[in-house]
Amino acid sequence: MCRAPGVAIPAVDEPFLQQLIANGLLVPTGVAGLFGKRGDFEAIVSGIDRMVERAGADQRAESYRFPPVIARTLLERSEYLGAFPNLIGSVHSFSGDDVAHATLLHAVEQGSDWTGAFEPTQVVLTPAACYPVYGMMSGTLPTGGRTVDVMSFCFRHEPSMDPARMQAFRMHEFVRLGSADACVAFRDGWLERGTELLTSIGLTPSVAPANDPFFGRRGRLLSKTQREQSLKFEILVPITSNEHPTAVASSNWHQDHFGELFGISQANGTVAHTACVGFGLERVTLALLKTHGLTIQAWPASVRQALAL
Amino acid sequence: MCRAPGVAIPAVDEPFLQQLIANGLLVPTGVAGLFGKRGDFEAIVSGIDRMVERAGADQRAESYRFPPVIARTLLERSEYLGAFPNLIGSVHSFSGDDVAHATLLHAVEQGSDWTGAFEPTQVVLTPAACYPVYGMMSGTLPTGGRTVDVMSFCFRHEPSMDPARMQAFRMHEFVRLGSADACVAFRDGWLERGTELLTSIGLTPSVAPANDPFFGRRGRLLSKTQREQSLKFEILVPITSNEHPTAVASSNWHQDHFGELFGISQANGTVAHTACVGFGLERVTLALLKTHGLTIQAWPASVRQALAL
Repeated sequence: MCRAPGVAIPAVDEPFLQQLIANGLLVPTGVAGLFGKRGDFEAIVSGIDRMVERAGADQRAESYRFPPVIARTLLERSEYLGAFPNLIGSVHSFSGDDVAHATLLHAVEQGSDWTGAFEPTQVVLTPAACYPVYGMMSGTLPTGGRTVDVMSFCFRHEPSMDPARMQAFRMHEFVRLGSADACVAFRDGWLERGTELLTSIGLTPSVAPANDPFFGRRGRLLSKTQREQSLKFEILVPITSNEHPTAVASSNWHQDHFGELFGISQANGTVAHTACVGFGLERVTLALLKTHGLTIQAWPASVRQALAL
Repeated sequence: MCRAPGVAIPAVDEPFLQQLIANGLLVPTGVAGLFGKRGDFEAIVSGIDRMVERAGADQRAESYRFPPVIARTLLERSEYLGAFPNLIGSVHSFSGDDVAHATLLHAVEQGSDWTGAFEPTQVVLTPAACYPVYGMMSGTLPTGGRTVDVMSFCFRHEPSMDPARMQAFRMHEFVRLGSADACVAFRDGWLERGTELLTSIGLTPSVAPANDPFFGRRGRLLSKTQREQSLKFEILVPITSNEHPTAVASSNWHQDHFGELFGISQANGTVAHTACVGFGLERVTLALLKTHGLTIQAWPASVRQALAL
């Protein structure tokens, strides 16, 4: 069963990605947007992760960590299937007998699709770090609401040779649940705080209104509404292009969208609003490597100190 | 689209799991074997992770971190499909148009299977932390071989109410690639070192020969051979049962299995042998909570110190 890969290995023609691979910081896997990371890349990721956590220390957030898969029912309830069906990773598994197994192995030998006997499991890959939070918050919030700190691997099926668009990546988020006023203040406060944080490590961030990449015809309308209502903002930093900087963080007010879907109420009985801010840990890492160079020992001392490198 | 979960939430009748959920250390997700973890549970996981890393510091391992999904071609090449087809999580995605999307959403509304238009992607969930290492090692090793330190989320489709049998869990592994002698010495050395490590944090480990849970008729033969050749050993600690302790670590010599499959040669040109030792981070955490109690502040000072708690 030792066989050549059935899928062509993508050509790496993005110059920054070429450098990262040549240096060994990223390890190619044969799949676009999927990489191993060397220990020093991971040390930067960890440094940013802790820095983001420290930046939110005054918010006394409750800390939770969720796995890279969530319940299929949570995805269904979240309306993600309506908004981003193309990005989902649905997990399927085999429950056949010896005969079905022989058929599977024959398909593998032939280099053809071997998932014929696979069925959807109860889980899907985590699309965003904050989704499990809405699932666990069904019910009534205490007075003043709640603030939650989460970090997890997320998956989005969008194979790309842009190193800043990985299929599997980590997102550190703070989620605010409470009144509309509290959520707007949270979103706006984090845009400012996030900008300061990124500036403190030598990056040059800019803030811009944004919309999610909603799917299809209906999606174009959703994107327009999101922009018109100024719900989502991104903090951008140049990574692979100076003209088209990459969003390394975003801060969103969802109004009562998730409160409604997950039955989350404020202490006064009205539907809860939610907001979240998320930092893309690989993206901030890449922005630092782009800005300060691939030799971490040569980075400004203040940056290395902030990230405990 | 706000609908009740289509799948029954499993009853929690395992007493230790009931305690962990009542305490808030584990957050149920409605899926057996899938949990959120509160910050203090995660602090223990991190403490064990660093402790394992320190225990291997003298091995001067190269450190890499891989995402929770791997290339489908890597799985095919590894023979995992022959050995454990029932445990695999195959990732499928949607690439339809607006019409297919409407069909999908209708299925979601009806509570029926909505994955009809989903196709296998280039990735599957990571079955064991060490698999990506074999993929990146194709070629010739330097004299003396290589040693690699990896940690990642792994997935195994085996829904269970035993808290020590999660579907998504983290494994910290050291992988040795080189001569047969080096691999056997590595495996045996780590059994001793792992036992000392677990004893140092107040656990009472025992070592036993073991076999992997190979699938089907052919699997029974593979299991027998593995035991007869004394290739795999587990370090066990009581978690949910004193009579049937749980494997919290295992140490395996694969002989030239992976060297052959992935074309890995020793410097002298012969096929490389491999061995790995893996610590289940959630399992060691659960063993500590079972042994020392759910109030971490009341744990022995030496244990808290070792884990930086």
